[in-house]
Amino acid sequence: MDVVQEVLLAEERIRPHIRLTYLEPSPFFSAISGANVYLKCENLQHTGSFKARGALSKLLSLSEAERDRGVVTASTGNHGAAVAFALSRLKANGTVYVPHQSASSKVEAIRRLGARVKFFGQDSVEAEAHARQVATDRGLTYISPYNDPQIIGGQGTIGLELSEQLDPVDAVFVAVGGGGLIAGVAGYLKSLDPGVQIIGCSPENSKVMMQSVRAGKILDLPSQPTLSDGTAGGVEAGSITFELCRDLVDDFVAVSEEEIRQAFRQFLPAQHMLIEGSAAVPLAALLKLPEPYQGRNVVVVLCGANIDSGTLAAIVGSNS
Amino acid sequence: MDVVQEVLLAEERIRPHIRLTYLEPSPFFSAISGANVYLKCENLQHTGSFKARGALSKLLSLSEAERDRGVVTASTGNHGAAVAFALSRLKANGTVYVPHQSASSKVEAIRRLGARVKFFGQDSVEAEAHARQVATDRGLTYISPYNDPQIIGGQGTIGLELSEQLDPVDAVFVAVGGGGLIAGVAGYLKSLDPGVQIIGCSPENSKVMMQSVRAGKILDLPSQPTLSDGTAGGVEAGSITFELCRDLVDDFVAVSEEEIRQAFRQFLPAQHMLIEGSAAVPLAALLKLPEPYQGRNVVVVLCGANIDSGTLAAIVGSNS
Repeated sequence: MDVVQEVLLAEERIRPHIRLTYLEPSPFFSAISGANVYLKCENLQHTGSFKARGALSKLLSLSEAERDRGVVTASTGNHGAAVAFALSRLKANGTVYVPHQSASSKVEAIRRLGARVKFFGQDSVEAEAHARQVATDRGLTYISPYNDPQIIGGQGTIGLELSEQLDPVDAVFVAVGGGGLIAGVAGYLKSLDPGVQIIGCSPENSKVMMQSVRAGKILDLPSQPTLSDGTAGGVEAGSITFELCRDLVDDFVAVSEEEIRQAFRQFLPAQHMLIEGSAAVPLAALLKLPEPYQGRNVVVVLCGANIDSGTLAAIVGSNS
Repeated sequence: MDVVQEVLLAEERIRPHIRLTYLEPSPFFSAISGANVYLKCENLQHTGSFKARGALSKLLSLSEAERDRGVVTASTGNHGAAVAFALSRLKANGTVYVPHQSASSKVEAIRRLGARVKFFGQDSVEAEAHARQVATDRGLTYISPYNDPQIIGGQGTIGLELSEQLDPVDAVFVAVGGGGLIAGVAGYLKSLDPGVQIIGCSPENSKVMMQSVRAGKILDLPSQPTLSDGTAGGVEAGSITFELCRDLVDDFVAVSEEEIRQAFRQFLPAQHMLIEGSAAVPLAALLKLPEPYQGRNVVVVLCGANIDSGTLAAIVGSNS
């Protein structure tokens, strides 16, 4: 796929509906890392995550007939909320499938944003398989969280904003799950400056894209639980994000749960904003390996702010 | 004082330095209150509080000679951080006095923002008295947190932004401590529409302005500890905010610590942003008395986001 073209098309479609998020200089993280650190505040994007960009991009790329028939997806997380937000914003119809045991707070959030929620299966794999089946059976559009050119184009509008907010951008630290965010951002920024360093960041407990790129093919690997639930899980077989990550990501860094926790705990009082675990991952990666970036303009993408109160209390209340 | 004129002058001075903060519609709080609730996100203002507006307004109102001689203030909280930020932004000199037992995290935050910190006295009253004395002795400018026309004008630029972001504004809920924020916002908005309802909100544990207005004079009353530390404390004798609050505030609402805690706990998962206790006060007030605002456009000013991790953990981790 042509990432730059998809980003530009997405930008046209979604700009009236999304937030140009702040790029916040961080004296605190600059002081402790030695880099000139800038925080891209997608934690303040509508729905509290960058996923609103991709969901809007996809929905707006459909024909009126396709939108009228309706869309389906499966997610209790940021993707589900983003699709629900996009549906409500565009007054379109859609259904978000969630597994039976989903937390009621997450289900309510998706309902409140305006989507129909249906329960199916015992986990997210079963809910997703069912959503795809429903789409096939009824001629509806299934919306993938990352394996889709229009989704990648939408996430890549972050790169477009960065290119207008900072000059030069020397390096960008991005959390990697399925790879849609980093593929879009890297594809766009590297077209302007091939020298920009793109660092993919994952938790040690779930780093399937990193392992896949190193193996040269998509691997089917298990994940351990992680504070970075927003990036956790495998990479879909045949995902178009694999080749993009292989070709565009300069380096991968994996961080431990303790490193994520420490970065999160430092972030909160210094930046007085809420983030979720996955947003602390690229921050932890920069703090772990800051040497190459001394005096350079480094962007850390704060990809989301959806953290449940129990996890938040456990992180900020611990004294480790 | 002429609030409108001070707001317009402040607007001229500070606009390049401050953030036009988001006005975020809240489907969640709209649903549970019955009002059309909009959140004014001063929690996302530079330094994490609206106080940056007033501090910049005051510093920029000084002559070059006055700024070169330097300014002093006393505060470990949002006002201290705001003055430090303004000093750094304007490359000016100044000292922030703090009591000896101040939390090191707060002191470091003020230092990191670029101000000199000096320790004096055992509590904020002693630190403030000393700062004023130093100002008098050395011909420096003392910067009051609220008893100052330029400070009130600066905070009032929030009203100016609101008038451009929402039409009509039917009611505004604002936390009240010294009264600088509500005086500026109310003075500006009432000049455009005398019918806008301005609701002053304070914790039961510290509601000196409310009690003073009801008594018809500034009272010297004790305060109990409160989650709303940003508004806690007395009102300075002779403060110009007293008459402004008396004349401009339509109603006062006091909320209990439990009501503040509940509002805070509802806010976090629904809005995925960080706030401090004082920002939960006007939210709690709306949720306590929503009847007059059914179907009306109600703004809740989220005045700040500076909460220490221990307090945050205690609020979000409790199951009450």
